[in-house]
Amino acid sequence: MSIIIAVDIGGTQIRVAAYRRGSLEPVDVRRTPTRGEGAAFDRMCAVIQSIWPEHSTVEKIVVALPGPLDPETGVIFSAPNIPGWDNFPIGPELEKRFGVRTLIGNDANLAALGEWRFGAGQGHHHLLYLTVSTGIGGGVISDDRLLLGVRGLAGEVGHIAILPDGPLCGCGQRGHLEALASGPAITRYVQEQLSSGIESTLRLKHKLTARDISEAAAKGDALAIHALERAGTYIGQALATFVQLLNPSVVIFGGGVSFSGKYLLDPVRASLEKQIMDKSYLKNLLITHAELGDDAGLMGALALGLLPDN
Amino acid sequence: MSIIIAVDIGGTQIRVAAYRRGSLEPVDVRRTPTRGEGAAFDRMCAVIQSIWPEHSTVEKIVVALPGPLDPETGVIFSAPNIPGWDNFPIGPELEKRFGVRTLIGNDANLAALGEWRFGAGQGHHHLLYLTVSTGIGGGVISDDRLLLGVRGLAGEVGHIAILPDGPLCGCGQRGHLEALASGPAITRYVQEQLSSGIESTLRLKHKLTARDISEAAAKGDALAIHALERAGTYIGQALATFVQLLNPSVVIFGGGVSFSGKYLLDPVRASLEKQIMDKSYLKNLLITHAELGDDAGLMGALALGLLPDN
Repeated sequence: MSIIIAVDIGGTQIRVAAYRRGSLEPVDVRRTPTRGEGAAFDRMCAVIQSIWPEHSTVEKIVVALPGPLDPETGVIFSAPNIPGWDNFPIGPELEKRFGVRTLIGNDANLAALGEWRFGAGQGHHHLLYLTVSTGIGGGVISDDRLLLGVRGLAGEVGHIAILPDGPLCGCGQRGHLEALASGPAITRYVQEQLSSGIESTLRLKHKLTARDISEAAAKGDALAIHALERAGTYIGQALATFVQLLNPSVVIFGGGVSFSGKYLLDPVRASLEKQIMDKSYLKNLLITHAELGDDAGLMGALALGLLPDN
Repeated sequence: MSIIIAVDIGGTQIRVAAYRRGSLEPVDVRRTPTRGEGAAFDRMCAVIQSIWPEHSTVEKIVVALPGPLDPETGVIFSAPNIPGWDNFPIGPELEKRFGVRTLIGNDANLAALGEWRFGAGQGHHHLLYLTVSTGIGGGVISDDRLLLGVRGLAGEVGHIAILPDGPLCGCGQRGHLEALASGPAITRYVQEQLSSGIESTLRLKHKLTARDISEAAAKGDALAIHALERAGTYIGQALATFVQLLNPSVVIFGGGVSFSGKYLLDPVRASLEKQIMDKSYLKNLLITHAELGDDAGLMGALALGLLPDN
């Protein structure tokens, strides 16, 4: 029985899972911290080695990586959190080390592919996936194919300009969606409001997180509800542009912030309906939550490994 | 020898061309006014009948249409200029009349396909086409396939929100790219500036057009140059979003306004470079003019007819 080894390089940990073809339950999953002692690449290889099956053939290794990369050459262009991984040919290096075909993909792109194959997007041919957490990323499935673009950089949804001269974005520009509606952006907005004297149960929090805001919203806190509504409205505005360009049948929200549920997605829907140029785009358009949760990276890597071309 | 009949429904005329497979030179081209006596559909059918070859087989009819439509069902949803063409099943009606397979496509989508197959996009696998004229439309080729979306509505680039509370767009929303950078938008801006007392050679024009503005820019008129620069800057901002989402290797500009040449495209480039989140997207990105000119619709219809799936 042949095995696909999926690797998910997350912000805090690197997870490695071995899947038997035809099964969604991994045979084994192991992990190592992303930032730990020694080179991340060597530790990752040690985990892959430790999970390597004795009596089965490994067909391929598939790696889900944060940040921009070229799926064709297997080079990751930059990984801010991992020293030495700028312009690092991680695909070829793994092939050299283990002697099996290695594929790499952007984690948000692969999450889109995972949701399409195994999650909330099953049965849809045109899908848009957005992950709203520390940043805002995404992936597009068009006609049952992952949209990659010429250098594998497609699917970047977080850096659409929304508010001229708006807040500074991590990329150096101003007013991007990510600077207005990501977890840290929502938290920053709430902190500003608290500083200006607005009343809220969130005032008691020592170190405010997006999760705190979600929870406060669920308990009726007006500021928390307003902050999520504001973020959702911006997301809906961006979504109108994406939906008009791509005409998907499903939009799937993943990432921590999307667990705010209706407090985020209701405003997203309202804003999208208000902003869309033509109601035809909304006919039968499903807007829903991701289903794969923390396994999106691994399952997405598996989905990529299972594509017939690969 | 089998024949493909291409039909291009333009704002002023309907053109019908018969192409031999393997040739880009039509055997014959005939036309009728879009708004004329009698029903447009009947006049179009009469022209198709008149061009119908005596000694060859017609393989299919392909129609390029303005406005939103569903390529799968052959229904055009709305054609503001043609009475009776709202939700009109033009594809099935033509099949009934002539007994051959009939395909329909949005004219901007088909222009994208035409440029990819026969024009400025040859050899590229990931292409973005924008037409800037009375409106702003577009089309996307990804991985050598025309991006259509679930209902064939993809490729809408003109209605991206650029300026909150900006000028009213034809679609009813405010601040869309089309309301800021289309031919009428540029003309309206120049007229406003003239009304406010700005000096310009354009003051002498009785009925100002986008072409007048292009010509004045070429002669050094400061207001004309500024107006095109302003439009180009907005287009560049929108382009950053599209390029980040699609990662094309070529962006092609068609439509009358794009004939303003460097006065429009230089600001587009400068604005794109300023707005893009990562320079990797610009590496080897070609920004250029359409090559098919007025034949974009017919050649695009031919390109659709020649696709192996069709």
